[in-house]
Amino acid sequence: MAARPARPGAEAERRIALRVEYDGTRYAGFQRQRPGRASIQSELERALGKLFGTPASVVAAGRTDAGVHARGQVVAFTCRTPMPVERIPYALNAHLPDDIVVQSARTVAPGFHPGRAARSKLYRYSIWNGPFVSPFWRLYAYRWQRPLDLERMKAAAALLEGTHDFRAFRATGSSAKTTVRTIFRCEPVADPPLVHLMVEGDGFLYNMVRIIAGTLLEVGEGRRSVESVAAALASGRRDDAGRTLPAQGLCLMEVRFEDPELSL
Amino acid sequence: MAARPARPGAEAERRIALRVEYDGTRYAGFQRQRPGRASIQSELERALGKLFGTPASVVAAGRTDAGVHARGQVVAFTCRTPMPVERIPYALNAHLPDDIVVQSARTVAPGFHPGRAARSKLYRYSIWNGPFVSPFWRLYAYRWQRPLDLERMKAAAALLEGTHDFRAFRATGSSAKTTVRTIFRCEPVADPPLVHLMVEGDGFLYNMVRIIAGTLLEVGEGRRSVESVAAALASGRRDDAGRTLPAQGLCLMEVRFEDPELSL
Repeated sequence: MAARPARPGAEAERRIALRVEYDGTRYAGFQRQRPGRASIQSELERALGKLFGTPASVVAAGRTDAGVHARGQVVAFTCRTPMPVERIPYALNAHLPDDIVVQSARTVAPGFHPGRAARSKLYRYSIWNGPFVSPFWRLYAYRWQRPLDLERMKAAAALLEGTHDFRAFRATGSSAKTTVRTIFRCEPVADPPLVHLMVEGDGFLYNMVRIIAGTLLEVGEGRRSVESVAAALASGRRDDAGRTLPAQGLCLMEVRFEDPELSL
Repeated sequence: MAARPARPGAEAERRIALRVEYDGTRYAGFQRQRPGRASIQSELERALGKLFGTPASVVAAGRTDAGVHARGQVVAFTCRTPMPVERIPYALNAHLPDDIVVQSARTVAPGFHPGRAARSKLYRYSIWNGPFVSPFWRLYAYRWQRPLDLERMKAAAALLEGTHDFRAFRATGSSAKTTVRTIFRCEPVADPPLVHLMVEGDGFLYNMVRIIAGTLLEVGEGRRSVESVAAALASGRRDDAGRTLPAQGLCLMEVRFEDPELSL
């Protein structure tokens, strides 16, 4: 336990990264919104302010949308505190609502940004493929009643792996310097009656995972050919990809870094 | 699809059993309460009334307490309807809130009572054994931060299997004709950081699973010896068993019947 220095505020600036888990149901997304709308960021910053007595600004690896969940979000902030880093999760959780939980903390280099430092992010899109969604999954999966052909979905998903221009798989009106991304893994995994679509990539365009999920669902229900996915990649036209599935099925599972020291 | 008879109300009386899943968080338990407090029974009876136009009375295999969940509750009711039994879940779910879901329905013999017909009920008590409970388990597990010795818990749990007088393991003030019950299985199963205590028995006294869970937790944390569990069975004194754990960790997983036809 570090001794508290004689003069408060004399501590050196420290950059801290946190692994954070949250149920996104109640929130307007990760990013701070206009006052009155709770966001994950505003809750974290409020808790940090209470803990350290000074405002702190939090940046995240993935700015999840309203209703999107996270099991392994990584955020970072700068503070001046003598508190041992392993105590920070306990101290912060005491100031957070119980649908946002800090699981671990680590000291990182000054200027560390989890989004820029991340090698990849792994998202999961969960589809409840059965007549009646379990009450325990009602907030965490998209319900789809009719049968899905998983083999077709797998074949189409494999076409999305690799480095491609994903222009067709982003929300219309969104902007990004480049629309080329590398998808390391795109795979539907059956856990009946659930189908979990696992998508790991070096970055994602706006709504990209939800549009990929909607496109693969259309392949699975037989409304769209496997080849149409390659055609959408080639044309770059949003209309050639499928619909955007709702936010609640999406969960940021893990943020991965080159440096194994950063595993949180 | 059965043809609708010319004269409504002319249908024969039918007894129907349902498998029902619910998130008990919002409810005052299974049983109908005084007006104003929602219960699983009142929601089911309200939905049946809307569907069939006449009041229906529902009985359950296990009258779960406030906050207790179910993945495999079985209930029964009598109705007069030409509706094919396989349509009943769809029709009822349309009138139920999304935290109560009818998963299946089956025609049973007149007078069938799921509680009396059941050979056994399987309950699960879930303990989150780690510093910070996941937001996705916050409503479904009891949080216990300090280490648990699973081997000690298993040894103590095994002492509860078999036919015993469980007088020491019921809430004080509760009454039952006999306090002898047969426990077919009592086993803590590790799924780190969760410990699921699986308890299957031919019947349960009031709060029995929650008191068994509290007693085994005290064994696991080292506050109580393995042998003390046998001593509590022998003495029949409530004080010799452990504390009652909160309702939210408890879930009725399955109701089992001799007749495999009744599998729901």
